[in-house]
Amino acid sequence: MRKIAVLTGGGDCPGLNAVLRAVVKAADRYGIEVVGVKDGFRGAIEGDFVPLGFGDVSGILPRGGTILGTTNRDNPFAYAGGGGDKAEPVDRSRDVLRNLEVAGAEALIAIGGDGSLKIALEFAELGLQVIGIPKTIDNDLMATDQTFGFQTAVTTAQEALDKLHSTAESHHRVMILEVMGRYAGWIALYAGVAGGADVILIPEIPYDLERVAEAVKRRARQGKKFSIVVVAEGAKPLGGEMVVESRVSGRPDPLKLGGIGAKVARDLATLTGMENRVTVLGHLQRGGSPVAYDRLLATRYGTAAVEALREGAFGTMVALQGRDIVRVALSDAVDKLKQVPLTDPVLLAARSLGIEMGD
Amino acid sequence: MRKIAVLTGGGDCPGLNAVLRAVVKAADRYGIEVVGVKDGFRGAIEGDFVPLGFGDVSGILPRGGTILGTTNRDNPFAYAGGGGDKAEPVDRSRDVLRNLEVAGAEALIAIGGDGSLKIALEFAELGLQVIGIPKTIDNDLMATDQTFGFQTAVTTAQEALDKLHSTAESHHRVMILEVMGRYAGWIALYAGVAGGADVILIPEIPYDLERVAEAVKRRARQGKKFSIVVVAEGAKPLGGEMVVESRVSGRPDPLKLGGIGAKVARDLATLTGMENRVTVLGHLQRGGSPVAYDRLLATRYGTAAVEALREGAFGTMVALQGRDIVRVALSDAVDKLKQVPLTDPVLLAARSLGIEMGD
Amino acid sequence: MRKIAVLTGGGDCPGLNAVLRAVVKAADRYGIEVVGVKDGFRGAIEGDFVPLGFGDVSGILPRGGTILGTTNRDNPFAYAGGGGDKAEPVDRSRDVLRNLEVAGAEALIAIGGDGSLKIALEFAELGLQVIGIPKTIDNDLMATDQTFGFQTAVTTAQEALDKLHSTAESHHRVMILEVMGRYAGWIALYAGVAGGADVILIPEIPYDLERVAEAVKRRARQGKKFSIVVVAEGAKPLGGEMVVESRVSGRPDPLKLGGIGAKVARDLATLTGMENRVTVLGHLQRGGSPVAYDRLLATRYGTAAVEALREGAFGTMVALQGRDIVRVALSDAVDKLKQVPLTDPVLLAARSLGIEMGD
Amino acid sequence: MRKIAVLTGGGDCPGLNAVLRAVVKAADRYGIEVVGVKDGFRGAIEGDFVPLGFGDVSGILPRGGTILGTTNRDNPFAYAGGGGDKAEPVDRSRDVLRNLEVAGAEALIAIGGDGSLKIALEFAELGLQVIGIPKTIDNDLMATDQTFGFQTAVTTAQEALDKLHSTAESHHRVMILEVMGRYAGWIALYAGVAGGADVILIPEIPYDLERVAEAVKRRARQGKKFSIVVVAEGAKPLGGEMVVESRVSGRPDPLKLGGIGAKVARDLATLTGMENRVTVLGHLQRGGSPVAYDRLLATRYGTAAVEALREGAFGTMVALQGRDIVRVALSDAVDKLKQVPLTDPVLLAARSLGIEMGD
Repeated sequence: MRKIAVLTGGGDCPGLNAVLRAVVKAADRYGIEVVGVKDGFRGAIEGDFVPLGFGDVSGILPRGGTILGTTNRDNPFAYAGGGGDKAEPVDRSRDVLRNLEVAGAEALIAIGGDGSLKIALEFAELGLQVIGIPKTIDNDLMATDQTFGFQTAVTTAQEALDKLHSTAESHHRVMILEVMGRYAGWIALYAGVAGGADVILIPEIPYDLERVAEAVKRRARQGKKFSIVVVAEGAKPLGGEMVVESRVSGRPDPLKLGGIGAKVARDLATLTGMENRVTVLGHLQRGGSPVAYDRLLATRYGTAAVEALREGAFGTMVALQGRDIVRVALSDAVDKLKQVPLTDPVLLAARSLGIEMGD
Repeated sequence: MRKIAVLTGGGDCPGLNAVLRAVVKAADRYGIEVVGVKDGFRGAIEGDFVPLGFGDVSGILPRGGTILGTTNRDNPFAYAGGGGDKAEPVDRSRDVLRNLEVAGAEALIAIGGDGSLKIALEFAELGLQVIGIPKTIDNDLMATDQTFGFQTAVTTAQEALDKLHSTAESHHRVMILEVMGRYAGWIALYAGVAGGADVILIPEIPYDLERVAEAVKRRARQGKKFSIVVVAEGAKPLGGEMVVESRVSGRPDPLKLGGIGAKVARDLATLTGMENRVTVLGHLQRGGSPVAYDRLLATRYGTAAVEALREGAFGTMVALQGRDIVRVALSDAVDKLKQVPLTDPVLLAARSLGIEMGD
Repeated sequence: MRKIAVLTGGGDCPGLNAVLRAVVKAADRYGIEVVGVKDGFRGAIEGDFVPLGFGDVSGILPRGGTILGTTNRDNPFAYAGGGGDKAEPVDRSRDVLRNLEVAGAEALIAIGGDGSLKIALEFAELGLQVIGIPKTIDNDLMATDQTFGFQTAVTTAQEALDKLHSTAESHHRVMILEVMGRYAGWIALYAGVAGGADVILIPEIPYDLERVAEAVKRRARQGKKFSIVVVAEGAKPLGGEMVVESRVSGRPDPLKLGGIGAKVARDLATLTGMENRVTVLGHLQRGGSPVAYDRLLATRYGTAAVEALREGAFGTMVALQGRDIVRVALSDAVDKLKQVPLTDPVLLAARSLGIEMGD
Repeated sequence: MRKIAVLTGGGDCPGLNAVLRAVVKAADRYGIEVVGVKDGFRGAIEGDFVPLGFGDVSGILPRGGTILGTTNRDNPFAYAGGGGDKAEPVDRSRDVLRNLEVAGAEALIAIGGDGSLKIALEFAELGLQVIGIPKTIDNDLMATDQTFGFQTAVTTAQEALDKLHSTAESHHRVMILEVMGRYAGWIALYAGVAGGADVILIPEIPYDLERVAEAVKRRARQGKKFSIVVVAEGAKPLGGEMVVESRVSGRPDPLKLGGIGAKVARDLATLTGMENRVTVLGHLQRGGSPVAYDRLLATRYGTAAVEALREGAFGTMVALQGRDIVRVALSDAVDKLKQVPLTDPVLLAARSLGIEMGD
């Protein structure tokens, strides 16, 4: 193999640059050139490529974001022209194949979440030599134990909880932090335990707010006149609906600002009569320099993807299982949401600590 | 002087503990005992005091919050009983004076914002030996060049901007950050310049959103397909109204979540056709370990307040002017809002950089 | 079980307080009281105990160090009286057993490194109901995949590398960072990869400095006039000796300051003719607020130890294996050093990146 | 003015990139092009210039180091050829003037410490249109109240003190931190007060170690069995000599590693009989992302230098005085060391807290 292409797709995630650097450095040892695709599959469709050499990846390890750019909506199999929501989608997959061929790229490393990996799988089925690298802040991909970027998002949320703690305690207040996690509560659970939360609400466990209110009032009776509540954006009341609605349109969505955090705040104030404040972390969780753990994981994914290419393991995704990076079939990796199981050890530890989970 | 009392009032602010530690340590060198008042003037009214010795302030320098607790609504001259909003306010100022006397406290150091300092002034006029120490995240007190906690809030907002930058750039998006500052734009201006913002909107300069949209589009035409917008919570459009409404009731306020940041996002999306995302930092700005600058300033205020007491400078507030801590009359310090003047050197630097201020 | 004791022994390690908090909170749910032993086995010998309730562990999760204190030299089976190096050691193990009995403690949770766990094992053999929790910055205990505190130490070293990078690059200099790891190179390897090191020298791979010099010069020829070198304190040249000598005496040891980092600097300057600078991180690696990863791991160890006690699994140590906390016999856990194997996946990733390991 | 040159000279310092960015952005508003000089005066001598446009300074605000590179030994008036220590120095100042002329640069902004600014002054006397910007980690330039980079160095040292605190307390140990400051104790004093040090030793106050030992023992008697000692690298005993020797040769200097920190440790162990540990922060203080305070100050210096150029204020240096950036004659700025005066307000605050200064 003499030349490969690499792209980053989907939402931003700390560690993307670390993966790119590892791919370029590992490929170089085999004399393989790397070409970068700009803005995810948009660049593949339009042939927007840049060479990626040592100089291009020098110094990017600690930086958030991706030097290639990314989007989370350009599907070559149903491309709406990048011009917004109105165009009739067309199949541009042939353009992608041709552009890669013209660029001399014999294979593609696709770094992305479920959406991008599904597209990668479709290309694999068309014969493209593809390796996937899993990417999601939310850690909700089934085939891998952990995704890079997740530990950084947990750290960002935990640092926010550390900050809220002092104010909660000084003011005898209930502080509510809404974190990412529409379908899975990993960030809320991990950050909540690491940040000393008193209540953690996740999508996997529909919550009974009366129980939550009771826990908050019990603490107050014991002299702890403050509580810290972490809510995943996809948490929902028993028998209720998720209050996050889609952001498909790409338009700013003020209702999102009145999401589950605000709802819990309103309802909890009514039930407890205690003052509270809500913070919605939002995109802060997607940015920033990756923590050491994620830099290591991202680097390992990058080098493992080059090894997989070298060994012809096309159509696979590299994944963490235990301490090892393994390869799984892309077809086994996509479309499988990994929620927090009720037997998850961190969830059990949370219960041992007496953290209220709302059930 | 053999014994003094100290209280912390108003909203939480990084550095309060550093002031308390400095007061106790400096007082000790003169053989003065210190008694702490719990929860601001609430504890003074109810005689809720604790002794504050070396052991009590050991290790608190780096911690956010206040070990004494604080509230921002208990006015002894119009006390509503701590029980919420409904009780008929009564004058409990005599109780404060008697409680201090019973505790043996010959003087009071009041650390607080404009509200607490006004109460301190009223007590000074009743003959209480009072020294004030200015406290506000917002840096909007006229009599002092800078308040402790401000630099920490600026740092928190700047770190958020650093995180948003990578995502903005990777996604070619407009990112909007709403920061504190209802009446003055200090945090927005300082954090915006330190965090590399492209647009900064502050209460002192009513904004013309068409100009802002034009700046964002101009950047896009020059190849910078992202922009970072910092908005102070009190920013308002030319000829418009502030969209933050009061939080007097102490109840969670979902509308606040749809404050100026959301409004700017909506309007800017309409004018530019570009995707954007809003983050509202909220109470994160009040918490966390104070930065070195604020620890130094808080420590200096604390030691200077003890010196002022020793020298009988009652009825004054310690204040920073240039490099020096001076004393100003409490009556000259309160009720005077310090907004960002149009000649502020950081504002002029922002203009030199080409940052769009909306005017 | 109605009452248990807990102690922290050996060198300081971020996460000790998180373990203590988890033990107290988890024990409370079973109605078990906890008594803390001061300063490791010193307090056990002298009966220096304190009750540990909810209030005592409130707020300690984010703090480095241990609220119980620790020492790394008081062995009850050969106790030198705490008075230094001169006293004749005596067996005080009976005092420990009696003191625990008098205090009503039915079992002991010992949090410590290899030394403390060996003592715990000896007590287990005397019939004491003991559970061990592994603790070492260096991550060099065989029976567990990872120890709490390690990830924080890696982060501290990685942040130092981030800082050194800009100076190295601006000054075209070789920067050398000496990190902890006398017998195992885990911190050097993980921090080196996460911090973008160009050279990593660990005890497991005796280094040939000519190879290192050649790598540094090759970079310079390619236009990278700087290099970052990470050295574990126990690294040694091919055929040479470790230059760290013992610190048994407890006296400050200026020669330590001229340890392996200084030696590598001297030799590398001679071989390359290039300017360099050395930084010795030292005890900074043992301090600070634990990172989220370590808070979670420490919390899980604490709750798992209480479960082990409840289930009568005495004489075991809780350990991380894969994603699970398991129990291993104390006798299988101690005296077994875990070095970096040549097949370690992070080591292989380092080689894929082209990092020079000196062999 | 249509084109100017800018260079960074002397030791690395956080904020250099922020200054460069501000210069480029401010110059652009006047239609002035900027050319960057590589590696301080070395690039000026050799005509090693690069254009600096918007794209080049995009994203550099948060980064440590300088994108232009720097050295601290190439004096055009006595140039040793960059080849080390042996060449006979020659006057290359005419080359500098010619190279600037060829490049079309009508003026030069020189960002540097005392050494670089002296060279800048010599060029000003030869008729070059020069503006100076002060740069020193140590904050020891007389003409300015504060230099950028200083607050970041203080923060790095304060964060190290925070980490050492928990270990000191847990282990009942004396921890010694050696920080930068060969001729002035600013970093030691500010970081020491902000980091809660018990002893601070600075060059301005020769120390009596018996007093220090007495303070440490007094704390131990009061139950504080640990102490934190901050030592500036230029601190010296009463009647003694500075133990830092020169690093002129650019060779690694193992003796430096046995500098004043190690000496204080040895002597203090002898006098107190208490165990201690030394950490030498070294070049960590020169690296890292500048804190918000320094980003603002650096940005203001950069924009002010462009204003000074525009207004023809050649031969001046921009300087901070109070809240304002003013201009001072370069001839008044160089060769004037600013030590900590005995009346410095932070020094007085340190004394009020009971911090032992060794006198």
